[in-house]
Amino acid sequence: MIRTLLAPFALVAAALPAAASEAPPPSPAATPAKPALAPSEIVAGAPASDWVGMAPADLLVMELAPDAKGRTRRVVIQLMPPPFSQGWIGNIRKLAAAHWWDGTSVNRVQDNYVAQWGDADGEDKAKAKALPTGLVKVPESQYISFSAHQIYYTVRTLVTPSRIRPKDAYAPISTFVRGWPVGVNDSGYRFRGKIPRGVVADPPPPPSLWPIHCYGMVGVGRDLSPDTGSGAELYSVIGTPPRHLDRNIALVGRVIEGIEHLSSLPRGTEVLGFYKTADERTPIRSIRLASELPAAEQPRFEYLSTESASFARYADARANRRDPFFIRPAGGADICNVPVPVRRAK
Amino acid sequence: MIRTLLAPFALVAAALPAAASEAPPPSPAATPAKPALAPSEIVAGAPASDWVGMAPADLLVMELAPDAKGRTRRVVIQLMPPPFSQGWIGNIRKLAAAHWWDGTSVNRVQDNYVAQWGDADGEDKAKAKALPTGLVKVPESQYISFSAHQIYYTVRTLVTPSRIRPKDAYAPISTFVRGWPVGVNDSGYRFRGKIPRGVVADPPPPPSLWPIHCYGMVGVGRDLSPDTGSGAELYSVIGTPPRHLDRNIALVGRVIEGIEHLSSLPRGTEVLGFYKTADERTPIRSIRLASELPAAEQPRFEYLSTESASFARYADARANRRDPFFIRPAGGADICNVPVPVRRAK
Repeated sequence: MIRTLLAPFALVAAALPAAASEAPPPSPAATPAKPALAPSEIVAGAPASDWVGMAPADLLVMELAPDAKGRTRRVVIQLMPPPFSQGWIGNIRKLAAAHWWDGTSVNRVQDNYVAQWGDADGEDKAKAKALPTGLVKVPESQYISFSAHQIYYTVRTLVTPSRIRPKDAYAPISTFVRGWPVGVNDSGYRFRGKIPRGVVADPPPPPSLWPIHCYGMVGVGRDLSPDTGSGAELYSVIGTPPRHLDRNIALVGRVIEGIEHLSSLPRGTEVLGFYKTADERTPIRSIRLASELPAAEQPRFEYLSTESASFARYADARANRRDPFFIRPAGGADICNVPVPVRRAK
Repeated sequence: MIRTLLAPFALVAAALPAAASEAPPPSPAATPAKPALAPSEIVAGAPASDWVGMAPADLLVMELAPDAKGRTRRVVIQLMPPPFSQGWIGNIRKLAAAHWWDGTSVNRVQDNYVAQWGDADGEDKAKAKALPTGLVKVPESQYISFSAHQIYYTVRTLVTPSRIRPKDAYAPISTFVRGWPVGVNDSGYRFRGKIPRGVVADPPPPPSLWPIHCYGMVGVGRDLSPDTGSGAELYSVIGTPPRHLDRNIALVGRVIEGIEHLSSLPRGTEVLGFYKTADERTPIRSIRLASELPAAEQPRFEYLSTESASFARYADARANRRDPFFIRPAGGADICNVPVPVRRAK
C-alpha cells in the first residue's frame, strides 16, 4: 500500500528534488523500459553552470516568534531584480534597514488567498507606527515594466525547446524572465530568429512585462487608487494564484524558504481573514536584509536559470508528465505550475 | 490606514459575500458615479430561484479531533453528481456507511499541494485496516465521462453572456457543468444555437468531460496504473490547482465548508509531506454521509446554479473586476479563479 499512500508521488516530486532517490521503485509491470525523467530528476541533474546565485542583499529574512513548541520560524524572501517594482523594493530596503518591522505581526490570514503582515495598529492614527523618512510614493506605472532588455530575455525564453508559453487567461504571453514568472504584451513585437544587438523597445505601445501572482509571491498592500502602497504592508499568496491582481498591485518578491510558517497559520475569523484578537496575531521578531546579518548567518540560495536548457527540459516535463505515475500527459502547464527550482547553495 | 489593511478588499470580497456590507465606503475621489458591482454583490443579489439545494445524501461530514484549544473541526464535502466518478463515489458511500474512516487520520499535509487522509498503517499489510466488502475496482475510463446530456449543459453554459470559457493550458474548453468546473474536449461537436431533443454523443471520439483540480477539490489516492484507488485514501487540494492530475486520477467532490481545518494543519516534514511521528497526525473521529445524521444535524447547503444568469454575471465580474479597488480588469479568469458560490441554506 505504500505507493498508494505516496500517490500521487511522481507528480509532487518536482517540488521535492530530494524525494526522487527516496521513491519506492515502481513495479516492473508498470515501468517502461526507459522511464522518462521526472521534473525533479531533471533539476537534480542540471549542471552547476545552470544555477544562478542570489545576492544576500536581495534576500529578506523574517524571523517570526517561535511556535507553540518553541521551534523557530524563519521565512526567506527573494526580492525581484530590475526593472520590476524597484520603487517599492527601495522602500522595503529602507524599512528593513530601519528595523521597522521588528515588533509588528502577521495580522491577516485568509484561506486560499493571502497571509499579510505589518503594523496591526496602522488603522489607528493615534497608535500607528511612524514610517522611516525617505520612502517614495511609487506611481501606478511601475506595476508594469517596459524594457527591451527584458524582451530580449523573454524572447530567448520563448524560443527554448519547451512548452513554457502556456495558454493564459490573463496575459497575451506568460513566460519566465531571469527566474520570475511574468506576463508579456509584445504588442506587435516579432522575433525573427536572431536577437539584434542593442534591440530597442520600438513603436508605442512598447512591449511590456509584469510579474505574475503565483503561490508564494510577495506583494504590497495598498489603499484605493491612486494609492500604490509604501511597502510597509506586505502579503504572500497562500492559495490559488490570484491573477486578477496582476498589474493592479505591486509584486516585489517571493518566499523561497519557510512559506509553511505563513500558509499553515490559523485563518483569521474576521472579515478578509483578519484576526479578531491581538493574541491571535503572530509576532514578527525581525525582518532583515540578509546582507545585514553576520556573514556566517547569511543564507545562500540559487535558482535554476530560466534561460537554461535544463529549465527548458524541466518546464517541458512539467507540461508533459511521462514518469510512471501519469497515464495522460497534459500537453501544457499553467505558468504557476512550473515553479522555478530554488535550492540552498553548497 | 484601514483600507490599506483591508486591501485588496474588493478582490477577495467574492470569497466572502458577508463582507460586502462591512466594507468601508471608498473615498469619493476614487468612486465612479455608479460603481460596478463586486462579484460578492452579484451573488448576494441572486434570486432564490438561481440557487440549487444539495441533498444530504450527497454530503460527507468529517469530524476531526478537536484542536489544541478544544474547538471542534468539521469538514463538509460535496460529492460529484453523475456522470462523474460514480464508481469511486459508490465505494465512498460504502466506506462511510461502514464507518470505515472512524479512527483513521490525516497523515500527509504537503504545502501548496494536498492534505491526505485514510489508514496510516495501510503500508503495513500486517496492520492495514480491512476494507469493507463490496467495493468495486473502477476502470481508468471513468476518469473521463462521455455524455451528450452533459454536453447539453456544457453548451448552455458556454453560450451564457459571460467570459467563462477561459484560455486554458490543460483543456480545449474549461467551463462549468451543474456546479462543477470541468474540462471539455468537444472534438468536432458544434453548437448550432439550438439544442436538438435527444441529442446523442455522435461521431467517435465522442465529446468528453472531466472534473478539474481546483482548490478544495477532493480526489482518490492511487497506486501506479492500472490501479485507480478504492476511495479509502482521499486528498484535498490546498494549493495551486495541480491541473496535471486532471484525467490521471479520480476527483469525487469538493470541500464546501471547513477547508481551513485541513489547509492550516502543520506540514509534514517527511517526503511528500507525510508526518514523521504518529502524534503529528490529526485523528478522524468520524466520516458520515449527512443523510445518516439525525435530521436536525444534517447540514443544508445550496450552490449558485452555473447555468443561471446570476452565475454568468458573477463569472463576468470575476473576469473583469470593475469595483473600485481595480485599475485594470483582467479580461479573463482562470476556471479555478471562478469559485462556484456555495452557502448555507436558510
